[in-house]
Amino acid sequence: MITFYTYPGPNARKAQIMLEESGEAYQAVTVDIKKGEQFDPKFLAISPNNKIPAIVDHTADGPVPVFETAAILTYLAEKSGRLLPAAGAKRYDVLAWLVWGTGSVGGTLPQLHHYSDLPDRVPGTVERFNTEAVRLFKVLERRLQQHEYICGDYSIADIPTFCSTAGWLQRVKGWSDGALGDTPAIDRWLKAVAARPAVQRVG
Amino acid sequence: MITFYTYPGPNARKAQIMLEESGEAYQAVTVDIKKGEQFDPKFLAISPNNKIPAIVDHTADGPVPVFETAAILTYLAEKSGRLLPAAGAKRYDVLAWLVWGTGSVGGTLPQLHHYSDLPDRVPGTVERFNTEAVRLFKVLERRLQQHEYICGDYSIADIPTFCSTAGWLQRVKGWSDGALGDTPAIDRWLKAVAARPAVQRVG
Repeated sequence: MITFYTYPGPNARKAQIMLEESGEAYQAVTVDIKKGEQFDPKFLAISPNNKIPAIVDHTADGPVPVFETAAILTYLAEKSGRLLPAAGAKRYDVLAWLVWGTGSVGGTLPQLHHYSDLPDRVPGTVERFNTEAVRLFKVLERRLQQHEYICGDYSIADIPTFCSTAGWLQRVKGWSDGALGDTPAIDRWLKAVAARPAVQRVG
Repeated sequence: MITFYTYPGPNARKAQIMLEESGEAYQAVTVDIKKGEQFDPKFLAISPNNKIPAIVDHTADGPVPVFETAAILTYLAEKSGRLLPAAGAKRYDVLAWLVWGTGSVGGTLPQLHHYSDLPDRVPGTVERFNTEAVRLFKVLERRLQQHEYICGDYSIADIPTFCSTAGWLQRVKGWSDGALGDTPAIDRWLKAVAARPAVQRVG
């Protein structure tokens, strides 16, 4: 049984989709960020960067705590043997696009969120992060014009980028003043990922 | 033989340190970012996000291209059997701290670099990213007070965070107005990593 430490938001959703895809049994425990529960020493022992999501797998060999979305997805893929090839060039293609999704895409959109939500506009900031988001979505569109999923077959590389893109593509497009045009390949892929039973179960 | 696509900077240094640690033979090829060579279709076929570092391992089974620093380090660790346990809780501890270093630390400091270098101050931006850098360095200090290296033994988790911290710790401390005080554990660890022959060879 896996304990899944969560709080509503895109990063928790990425981990929960992979929990569903992996077929592992899990139980969700909410870490109430608004009450500061992420700074509880018991939680810090599991997630020393004080962030959700985190998991603890209670195995016969003892507990395995894992934090950081990319590491959680890799753990679940390697445990279940699903959505990450065990060896060969395709394995590292998936790992590269996985960390591109959590680090580059997943690092840019929260900044855009922050600066676009501020009541007082900070000069240049929305433009700076939107320009990077446009660049990233163009990289994704080019990739998905050549591959059905990011790495050919559906893999853990699709999950973080799907969660970020689903929430942000239209806003980024709207703010891009035409710099990001139509994205037919991304649109097709968003629908295909959204239709997966595991994704539907998470909602 | 591995081809290492590089351009001077912290991300290239992270990959090159692990190339040296792995013992793999490699040949460096400079991608001149100032001339836009990262957008050359031949380079994009290797590194579709148009960033260095990237590698191509010319193996008997065919070429293995890998982009994204965390994926490159994982590839070299798995190929050489060095600096990443093959299984067990410690493996995922290393992977979690690896992506913490490339994503969280490695995502924050370039923003601080950008905003602190601007000739005209953008209100609140240096403060925002410095506050996050202080938080991250406090997480690191707490960790290194309990562990000799980030995950106990030296591992691929140390390399990205070492490269970022070596360049930024003193500036972040200076700008923190006392919020980041002494960091004896980080200071000890920086010296220990800097003294490694592989790190010295990269310079």
